[in-house]
Amino acid sequence: MDKQHLHIVKIGGNIIDDQQQLSKFLADFALLPSPKILVHGGGKKATAVAADMGLQANMHNGRRITDSAQIEVVTMVYAGLLNKKIVAQLQAFDCNALGLSGADANCIQAHKRVVENIDYGFAGDIDSVNAHAIHAFLQACFTPVFCAITHDKQQQLLNTNADTIASALAAAMSAMYTVELSYVFELKGVLENPKDPDSVIRQITLESYHKLVADKVISAGMIPKLHNGFDALKKGVKTVKIGNASQLKSPTACGTNLQL
Amino acid sequence: MDKQHLHIVKIGGNIIDDQQQLSKFLADFALLPSPKILVHGGGKKATAVAADMGLQANMHNGRRITDSAQIEVVTMVYAGLLNKKIVAQLQAFDCNALGLSGADANCIQAHKRVVENIDYGFAGDIDSVNAHAIHAFLQACFTPVFCAITHDKQQQLLNTNADTIASALAAAMSAMYTVELSYVFELKGVLENPKDPDSVIRQITLESYHKLVADKVISAGMIPKLHNGFDALKKGVKTVKIGNASQLKSPTACGTNLQL
Repeated sequence: MDKQHLHIVKIGGNIIDDQQQLSKFLADFALLPSPKILVHGGGKKATAVAADMGLQANMHNGRRITDSAQIEVVTMVYAGLLNKKIVAQLQAFDCNALGLSGADANCIQAHKRVVENIDYGFAGDIDSVNAHAIHAFLQACFTPVFCAITHDKQQQLLNTNADTIASALAAAMSAMYTVELSYVFELKGVLENPKDPDSVIRQITLESYHKLVADKVISAGMIPKLHNGFDALKKGVKTVKIGNASQLKSPTACGTNLQL
Repeated sequence: MDKQHLHIVKIGGNIIDDQQQLSKFLADFALLPSPKILVHGGGKKATAVAADMGLQANMHNGRRITDSAQIEVVTMVYAGLLNKKIVAQLQAFDCNALGLSGADANCIQAHKRVVENIDYGFAGDIDSVNAHAIHAFLQACFTPVFCAITHDKQQQLLNTNADTIASALAAAMSAMYTVELSYVFELKGVLENPKDPDSVIRQITLESYHKLVADKVISAGMIPKLHNGFDALKKGVKTVKIGNASQLKSPTACGTNLQL
């Protein structure tokens, strides 16, 4: 029997920061056929709230160092404010959204990142995805909306990269569904020339990916996204696309396709 | 056929504020037989976070006036920080907790409180409870954990009293379950003399309630809780108890029983 199609969409922080873009995206997302899952990052709001609270965000190579004060802030902002705002908007668009962190229904279990050179604090690396629970939500016609918070099943909440969450969810659900994974953000796709917004690379294979990285065509910020995308493909995800939020509703839309 | 028993427990703010008490309570709650639902208030954390952010909490007769900055704070603290901390702790105790606001799965729909003398801002009065969705979660062996945030199905999140949420949930679930509703907090029950912690009134009927209010025996803060409790009984809830968190695990525990 053919497996059911499942669309997992990860929305980037820059869209979340812009209320108008977010609202337009959510209206499009609500119209996508079910089953579907939304994964969202944090955007600048966590940094702004931390600053309002007199806390400084410590970053290392673009990654947040999550100390005990910062894990409280990201839990508040990601799982509280942003997740519930997105859920309430989707509900207004008649999409039966269900907001989740990795702790809820033990959906995503992780462990605190092992300290090597840098102690990232309460940053979580994913151990397992509870595909059974997520399948139950999908079959009950809910649309899960995941924020970038996981837990270690020993009470500790952990900050986990949203691109990685989307990839791990897509890989885990592939056993039961034909999964399409879309990373949507403010650009039209992976660009050959960062200064030319139309220079979208239509297709990237694992081979051309390694060459693009070696030739330094792909920017540092894009590498983890592509790494996560290829990881998903290797684990059985059918399609991985990287593109603009506005292309979501068009199946023939442009953007970048990843292929093994 | 006898209806299945459902225990709904509302936990007060003072317990949430004390990590040790909270942890002890959650360990007890995790051991209660399923199906069960936890409802939690906010405690002092929202006021503390608001203060850290330079916002002052405006209160009127003990009720928060929720302006647009404050609804962001309570959404962050209730639905984010407190809800996920509670869920992560319950998961550690092997209770399959699922954190929910009223927006999630459209569980609790409300409307912005109509302005009469005082504009309470984004305070929500409950219109409906989605018993069907909550039943689906319970049947899938999840333990819903509700925070005190609802929505109006038109994108707006609303701050709603947790005692009222517990009462409305209990009433709505009574169609399908034999519901026991427990309000647990730091006291041993409703006290005849606030200065004597052991002066618990064992039973309050609707008639004695009115007399206790008229005689000013019951404090102002207790009146809404009792009002919510009697409201639940009128709407078909089987048992309503008010007592100490430590009494939860003992079926013969003391505390105050409400009866029509």
